[in-house]
Amino acid sequence: MADPQDSSLSCDKSKVGIFGSTGYTGATLAGLLAKHPNIEIVFLASQQYAGAKFSSVYNEYQGLIDFECQGMDDEAILNLNKKQVDLVFFATPNGIAYKHVPALLAKNIHCIDLSADYRFRDLKTYETWYGFKREDKATNDKAIYALVEFKRKQIKAAAKSGAVIIGNPGCYTTSAILALAPILEAMPETIDPRSIIVDGKSAISGAGRKAATELLFAEVNESCSPYKLANSHRHGPELEMFFSELSGKKIELSFSPHLIPMTAGLLTTCYINFTKDTSEAELRKLYEARYTGEQFIKILEPGIYPQTRWAVGTNNAFIQINYDQRLKRATLTCAIDNLIKGAAGQAVQNMNLVFGFKEELGLV
Amino acid sequence: MADPQDSSLSCDKSKVGIFGSTGYTGATLAGLLAKHPNIEIVFLASQQYAGAKFSSVYNEYQGLIDFECQGMDDEAILNLNKKQVDLVFFATPNGIAYKHVPALLAKNIHCIDLSADYRFRDLKTYETWYGFKREDKATNDKAIYALVEFKRKQIKAAAKSGAVIIGNPGCYTTSAILALAPILEAMPETIDPRSIIVDGKSAISGAGRKAATELLFAEVNESCSPYKLANSHRHGPELEMFFSELSGKKIELSFSPHLIPMTAGLLTTCYINFTKDTSEAELRKLYEARYTGEQFIKILEPGIYPQTRWAVGTNNAFIQINYDQRLKRATLTCAIDNLIKGAAGQAVQNMNLVFGFKEELGLV
Amino acid sequence: MADPQDSSLSCDKSKVGIFGSTGYTGATLAGLLAKHPNIEIVFLASQQYAGAKFSSVYNEYQGLIDFECQGMDDEAILNLNKKQVDLVFFATPNGIAYKHVPALLAKNIHCIDLSADYRFRDLKTYETWYGFKREDKATNDKAIYALVEFKRKQIKAAAKSGAVIIGNPGCYTTSAILALAPILEAMPETIDPRSIIVDGKSAISGAGRKAATELLFAEVNESCSPYKLANSHRHGPELEMFFSELSGKKIELSFSPHLIPMTAGLLTTCYINFTKDTSEAELRKLYEARYTGEQFIKILEPGIYPQTRWAVGTNNAFIQINYDQRLKRATLTCAIDNLIKGAAGQAVQNMNLVFGFKEELGLV
Amino acid sequence: MADPQDSSLSCDKSKVGIFGSTGYTGATLAGLLAKHPNIEIVFLASQQYAGAKFSSVYNEYQGLIDFECQGMDDEAILNLNKKQVDLVFFATPNGIAYKHVPALLAKNIHCIDLSADYRFRDLKTYETWYGFKREDKATNDKAIYALVEFKRKQIKAAAKSGAVIIGNPGCYTTSAILALAPILEAMPETIDPRSIIVDGKSAISGAGRKAATELLFAEVNESCSPYKLANSHRHGPELEMFFSELSGKKIELSFSPHLIPMTAGLLTTCYINFTKDTSEAELRKLYEARYTGEQFIKILEPGIYPQTRWAVGTNNAFIQINYDQRLKRATLTCAIDNLIKGAAGQAVQNMNLVFGFKEELGLV
Repeated sequence: MADPQDSSLSCDKSKVGIFGSTGYTGATLAGLLAKHPNIEIVFLASQQYAGAKFSSVYNEYQGLIDFECQGMDDEAILNLNKKQVDLVFFATPNGIAYKHVPALLAKNIHCIDLSADYRFRDLKTYETWYGFKREDKATNDKAIYALVEFKRKQIKAAAKSGAVIIGNPGCYTTSAILALAPILEAMPETIDPRSIIVDGKSAISGAGRKAATELLFAEVNESCSPYKLANSHRHGPELEMFFSELSGKKIELSFSPHLIPMTAGLLTTCYINFTKDTSEAELRKLYEARYTGEQFIKILEPGIYPQTRWAVGTNNAFIQINYDQRLKRATLTCAIDNLIKGAAGQAVQNMNLVFGFKEELGLV
Repeated sequence: MADPQDSSLSCDKSKVGIFGSTGYTGATLAGLLAKHPNIEIVFLASQQYAGAKFSSVYNEYQGLIDFECQGMDDEAILNLNKKQVDLVFFATPNGIAYKHVPALLAKNIHCIDLSADYRFRDLKTYETWYGFKREDKATNDKAIYALVEFKRKQIKAAAKSGAVIIGNPGCYTTSAILALAPILEAMPETIDPRSIIVDGKSAISGAGRKAATELLFAEVNESCSPYKLANSHRHGPELEMFFSELSGKKIELSFSPHLIPMTAGLLTTCYINFTKDTSEAELRKLYEARYTGEQFIKILEPGIYPQTRWAVGTNNAFIQINYDQRLKRATLTCAIDNLIKGAAGQAVQNMNLVFGFKEELGLV
Repeated sequence: MADPQDSSLSCDKSKVGIFGSTGYTGATLAGLLAKHPNIEIVFLASQQYAGAKFSSVYNEYQGLIDFECQGMDDEAILNLNKKQVDLVFFATPNGIAYKHVPALLAKNIHCIDLSADYRFRDLKTYETWYGFKREDKATNDKAIYALVEFKRKQIKAAAKSGAVIIGNPGCYTTSAILALAPILEAMPETIDPRSIIVDGKSAISGAGRKAATELLFAEVNESCSPYKLANSHRHGPELEMFFSELSGKKIELSFSPHLIPMTAGLLTTCYINFTKDTSEAELRKLYEARYTGEQFIKILEPGIYPQTRWAVGTNNAFIQINYDQRLKRATLTCAIDNLIKGAAGQAVQNMNLVFGFKEELGLV
Repeated sequence: MADPQDSSLSCDKSKVGIFGSTGYTGATLAGLLAKHPNIEIVFLASQQYAGAKFSSVYNEYQGLIDFECQGMDDEAILNLNKKQVDLVFFATPNGIAYKHVPALLAKNIHCIDLSADYRFRDLKTYETWYGFKREDKATNDKAIYALVEFKRKQIKAAAKSGAVIIGNPGCYTTSAILALAPILEAMPETIDPRSIIVDGKSAISGAGRKAATELLFAEVNESCSPYKLANSHRHGPELEMFFSELSGKKIELSFSPHLIPMTAGLLTTCYINFTKDTSEAELRKLYEARYTGEQFIKILEPGIYPQTRWAVGTNNAFIQINYDQRLKRATLTCAIDNLIKGAAGQAVQNMNLVFGFKEELGLV
């Protein structure tokens, strides 16, 4: 990582900062950016660890990120101008980014929000699920829900015409979209719009780094558990919005998250019924065509099922397609790293697009 | 455990043996039986460890089960008569029990088979999925598919009229049946018979104790993976058979097994669509009524989701009921210990019924 | 478990209560006692969960322990008399038991303390390491440091002559004492009293159930770490005290605890140098003789190394003896369940002795 | 990774091959080399998977390493000349490298052996511990036991004067050497040469990828176990050789390996007694000075203990120094990734030195 004090390097590199840098998502992002050849980190802000050396919170970064975290309301960083910072990430809890983004955009600074603040076209839906009343409709309207593989052109175009605000998709939604979107995009007239079920399996890091009894090792280790079933988890409406837009049909679905005793990794098992018959071979052809040239998307050969550990530590998604002729039901499975392709890696991928870098830079 | 040589004890205790005692299921069963107050183990047979001290294969049983394993074709055990053994368990691979059971029944010795040999009413289905041609139709017709909570009377009645052959249900099926059967039993006319999806999450021990690369710690740890999707796993037809019989409708379903990085425990997340509306409260009432007095079935309070670790080491099943009004879809979740309620514990529960013991004996 | 309201049962059973019942140690103890055939639990007190149903804190006990936790300072339980409660357990943080024990003993109620309050003969050592100034020297002098296998007679004798106060040993210390004590007891003149090193490996549950960031799953999973090295952990002086008393020599040792990513289980690898030569065979003979008849102690055959999972869920200890002739150094290894033999199980074992029950009652 | 068919790239890159590429060490090495900017892999040889696509054995490498494995005795690779391959790695079982190395050196091809074949100055010691009789004394005499931080100059010098044979240290030994060598190097006269104890804790991947019952998930998960205690593990004499050479004293030590339920990572807890007093501060100064400029060595601040997960996925070693004045005993702890700094990463580090690349290339 570039030393933020060393101005000799600054001319070459794009300058970024992170609000909320000490949660798991923020720290993963900081690690990726610190090793990114074209990036200089200019600040890491943290609510809980303001004033602490970043590598004393995450000792694995000793020698890599040794400077101090700043406070979330540190004037020095709030007053940075376009010359001092090109892009700001929010890896904050929900309800924080939207208070800062309008001012940053006004200063022509790009924003990538890894929280849910800019994921919803409709602020009512956001308010219903997240509880914050918002007045920044104009800004929200400009936000791009940036699942890269489905929004690349839009992101690039927006970045050319000024500062962008990107709503980085959630971890479960990224996996489920990669698994189901090719069908919803290409053959919406053949599917039952109320048949989709997304059964998600997430690593514990997906629950964040809060000191809560229910996330203690001895509580979740050697156990598997569902939570927030039957339309009670916030990623459900996020999926419904995206799929409805993509397919032009009103999609209503079931989303069932589960905690799995592993540190990183996420699998979604996605079910969808067809109203007229198709076949595994036909679906496979569709997926291979749709994802041709997508370097982070790996369609697995028949008979090979995705294992989350293959994706862990990478920005890759591993996808398998299965179809039951009897029931006209496809089962799509997709494994990602919840903190990388499901959060920080996709944010870097988005940043690379915004800056016009090669999309995989800093991600291999 | 009773010393098999010590005849002074023999008069009081029922005498049992196990074929296939050194797999995970067999060993769990041996452990339960060794501590069972009314049982004397008269033999433990093993293909791989014939001649070895049982506690040198499973060192945790040192001081509890120290006698030697016998061979699977040891004449001494094959020739045991009714006075010497009351009941024989098969914890063998599929395709072995059916070669022994007719002769044992003829000697008036009860049989409990934990493999799949006696789970199918229709031998063609068995042959299709398991590959063995069978000639023992008469015996198979007598077999009881003994998910205790749904077959208690039948088991008791059969045991009164002679030697029984019990097909002990599989682990995934036990969990899915406990989760779904109350609906299929009580309100079959209100459900879509092709809407059921069973998304299963099993501990690695469910794959057995074979020295296979894909079951090595470093291959499955910190990973989650589906396998045999879209009507390619053998527990699918087992479920379809049971549910079709119970509901009087032709049930065709999707079953999706997954491996979870834990030693023991199994969760099924079961989806079912209703054709006319119901409610979570109504379903909860149904489940509470159906399972009243069932000491191993724990219906969880609203908002509490089953965690597999609660069930591990016990014969208990933890069940939660959720319903999405929008989609008329219920999500039923059920956690068990795959080796206990899903195999050895349920076998002991069945044995207790056969012998007329209290059903929970040796299981608490 | 007996219903505490059901007085018809009370006549037969000994009545016990637990202060600090909702930590991992307390809950393990509650579970053992609830299944104990001769015990009735009359109260479960908890600081954090007063007023909550015990089985809503530990859902695995639904149907087993459904009554409410009481507050730690609930007058009703503080005022219980000898007729109402026979024995009280403390599974509290350090510094609480000693405030209650004198009053309980005065009422002729037995006390078993699983915290460190009554482990030290010398209150100065206790104060140095735990920070509490004590005035109950008289009571402390009566306390028995009750590693059962080495204090059985003393416990029995004390219980015959009145109410006892038992200091239940810590988890690391239990394992290390079982591993090393036979040598220190039988051949103290042949060992180097400053050569002992105890390298301990403990499951995460040993750190307790506090909502601390450093105990989150994602922090400790897939990792192994030492802590409090070089005479900075409290179990060091506990060991030195016991070994010095046992051997009649001043023992000073190194104790190095480590956290291992598992829920339960504890291993100590103990090193000791001899000043004159011995042999593995001779040491083995010593251990086998010393532990003859000890049903919870399993000396492993040569070449078999203890695995903590064998001990988990039981009160057993598995011990192996190795010796390096070149260096005159023995390596003793001992695996236990940190919450059972290392805490709650040993407490039940002690309780059984106090009540004159069979020592293994409720522990198999 | 360079496409081995694409000759346009070949001019710029150094060409390497791996014998034994499909074990955990070999596959980790293949992954590092495939992403190394200056390296072209020209072959991956495998005993078990000859003819299989590498990414069908390790699906995580789909799109990265898709070419086929060759056989171990494939003439085409045995006949490669200096123009076709610059350096060959052996990640084979012990007893294979030494059969190939002399011929490769004769062709002026560098060799890095990750097995034990070239770790011992004295072939008798090798024969005693590994069982192979060797006739290649001349070659063995040239081998460098290449713990980089202690042999950098020697490696560079040798590479300048011709083809080198490098014996890459074992995983436990790498960790223990990094932990203890500064003391043995700088102050050998103050230590007791028979006091060293290395208590090692290794991830399961350290046991390799062989289909053995004792390495199954359900056998080693949630368990911790020692093995090969009291001078019976092969890394003991490797350590004694290195430390004796470094200190000029005859070092005899105890090495106690343990398996820890995690996929990757290794910790050694090392004990050493001093004959005259020193202090933690003095030792810390020594370590900081010795490792100044060593980018992969991280000396932790006082009070911070190494966690193996910090090292996992990197070539870093995290070291802490503790000292007990009472006993004049230091406790040194060191965490590494057993497959990276303990094997493949150190091999790449060695390769970088041999080729004159920056030492960290491909390792960050």
